[in-house]
Amino acid sequence: MRQPAAPGQRLEEVDTPALILDLDAFEANLRTLADAVRGTGVRVRTHAKTHKCPEVGKRQMALGAVGACCQKVSEAEAMVAGGITDVLVTNEIVGAPKLERLARLAGRARIGVCVDDAANARALDAAAGRAGATLDVYVELEVGMGRCGVAPGEPALALARAVAACPHLRFAGLQAYNGRAQHVRTLAERRALIERAAEQVRATRRLLEENGIACPTVTGAGSGTFMLEVQSGAWNEIQPGSYAFMDADYARNEQAAPLPRFAHALFVLATVMSRGGGARAVVDAGLKASSVDSGMPAVWQRPGLAYVLASDEHGFIEIAPGAAAPALGEKLLLVPGHCDPTINLYDWYVCVRRGVVESLWPITARGALT
Amino acid sequence: MRQPAAPGQRLEEVDTPALILDLDAFEANLRTLADAVRGTGVRVRTHAKTHKCPEVGKRQMALGAVGACCQKVSEAEAMVAGGITDVLVTNEIVGAPKLERLARLAGRARIGVCVDDAANARALDAAAGRAGATLDVYVELEVGMGRCGVAPGEPALALARAVAACPHLRFAGLQAYNGRAQHVRTLAERRALIERAAEQVRATRRLLEENGIACPTVTGAGSGTFMLEVQSGAWNEIQPGSYAFMDADYARNEQAAPLPRFAHALFVLATVMSRGGGARAVVDAGLKASSVDSGMPAVWQRPGLAYVLASDEHGFIEIAPGAAAPALGEKLLLVPGHCDPTINLYDWYVCVRRGVVESLWPITARGALT
Repeated sequence: MRQPAAPGQRLEEVDTPALILDLDAFEANLRTLADAVRGTGVRVRTHAKTHKCPEVGKRQMALGAVGACCQKVSEAEAMVAGGITDVLVTNEIVGAPKLERLARLAGRARIGVCVDDAANARALDAAAGRAGATLDVYVELEVGMGRCGVAPGEPALALARAVAACPHLRFAGLQAYNGRAQHVRTLAERRALIERAAEQVRATRRLLEENGIACPTVTGAGSGTFMLEVQSGAWNEIQPGSYAFMDADYARNEQAAPLPRFAHALFVLATVMSRGGGARAVVDAGLKASSVDSGMPAVWQRPGLAYVLASDEHGFIEIAPGAAAPALGEKLLLVPGHCDPTINLYDWYVCVRRGVVESLWPITARGALT
Repeated sequence: MRQPAAPGQRLEEVDTPALILDLDAFEANLRTLADAVRGTGVRVRTHAKTHKCPEVGKRQMALGAVGACCQKVSEAEAMVAGGITDVLVTNEIVGAPKLERLARLAGRARIGVCVDDAANARALDAAAGRAGATLDVYVELEVGMGRCGVAPGEPALALARAVAACPHLRFAGLQAYNGRAQHVRTLAERRALIERAAEQVRATRRLLEENGIACPTVTGAGSGTFMLEVQSGAWNEIQPGSYAFMDADYARNEQAAPLPRFAHALFVLATVMSRGGGARAVVDAGLKASSVDSGMPAVWQRPGLAYVLASDEHGFIEIAPGAAAPALGEKLLLVPGHCDPTINLYDWYVCVRRGVVESLWPITARGALT
């Protein structure tokens, strides 16, 4: 796999499109999270669905993260292969081939997984038994996202009992994640959604304990809300991912205490490849270079330039009256609309410090779908 | 790179998400295009930006295509490496490293490229000279897309003269492509847009010839309009790509003569991974498995099931009252909203015939961005 740049190159020499990681901003984001959570007693388990790269995960662990979260077995395999030995799959895993792979992985690393179905829990138990392994299993609560998970209360108790009855599973606690709350713009609305989820978590945890089932971990939260979960006291583990990079969509959230402020650390470097009429330029980064599912990328530190439309391999830049127009061949930095699916389009991070390429990190879980 | 399936496996045994190519439908689409164009004197040069796979390109050439189109130098490199020796880059290529690579490639294959700027043409000429190669160069006309290209008429003549003056460039003709017209829903509106472009092409070609510049090729057109370009007489080469696969967005176009009907040949196989309340199911294919830039995927041949929302790794399926609800673990075929960026998420086509995996084709230009 050809590396897209070389250490020592200047940023403006890097061929485009390229995925650029500003190391100073990235490292500052990692410290900001560690500082925010320090002393609260809440563990950090950062999400690898965002970064897809053991080099990132290991740096997060060096600042206190206990391990990684993944959404897919193949992501977990890539993280374990990269040296991360404590992985929670924050998702339901269904289908015999995946269960076998997950159980085998549990022979090499501490592996957790979520369930929302008793038959699925029994299938996990059988796979773990065949592999001679034990899996940590979390009952996922549906707390407002309308996606996976069982209802809080009695349904969760019944499923926890089913897990506890499986000889090769260890009931590890609850997963409670409201993904939709992450992108609600006002902090007050996010707080209300997380407080509602917290009440459901507390009630379910109480019910489990009244029934003799200890609940060592409650895990969840994302970059848009994690301090709300921390302050609620209902979670003792958080799963932020995007905070390390930030994107144009997260930047549209109201940023206010108790959430700390993170910096844009991830960019797509693009070249102006066509200069049509005065008010239009075209860059060589379209929707195969910056995912548009959460909106267009933003042009970084170039007032009056707006990325208004993406086709597959082209981006349309509108130049406001009076703005400095970019020349043909000039390079622009774009802030992706959504970092997770954008990173998944690249094989390498080009890691830059003060304008010079310092290293290249392979995105080994890129395309890890199964 | 682990293969996601094995020849001889039944479709329902393939792990998910997987990119499925129905070979019978795919081969029928290739024949349908060849039949539609036969006898018109118009050449077919199919677009590799869609398929990213020399195995596909070679099958298109076996049915008469003269070569491949690409959007990126790295795509062209992958096609040449895969045995396709006549490639047109239907795009402007800007920046020294790319020009050097393109010129080197022209030592191994016939390579064409588009220009819309005279300085860029001179830089191409210098790179070709250093490589001891000759490039076919097409002047791109802006014919309604508002993207790249020069205006028809005098600006195109001036640029064609600049190209013709370059010793290492061969002026090969005009590129005229209106990408926006491809997805205009009614055939009458598409016809009006292509007729307007045809007039601009004819006028420019006449002007070139009046000025002693022969224009051997006029190339353009896509899957949504190509028979309109063929019938206009203004183009003698067409560049369809999506026709081989079709997607949910192209299926929303009015399909009527003179355009032939193509079949859905490309699918994402997904597994039901959670069964919440009665009217909801969740599949394991989200927006990292099926690009949502042109809308949600469609559920294939399951009346009453609709894919209504995608998150990164999950798809939300709504079950209409009375519809047969899918069971946990059941597999569904999805028709991607947009085939090009969806294919770009995968490393392999799992090629299936009548429910059995026949072969796996590597998507060697996946992620070819530069």
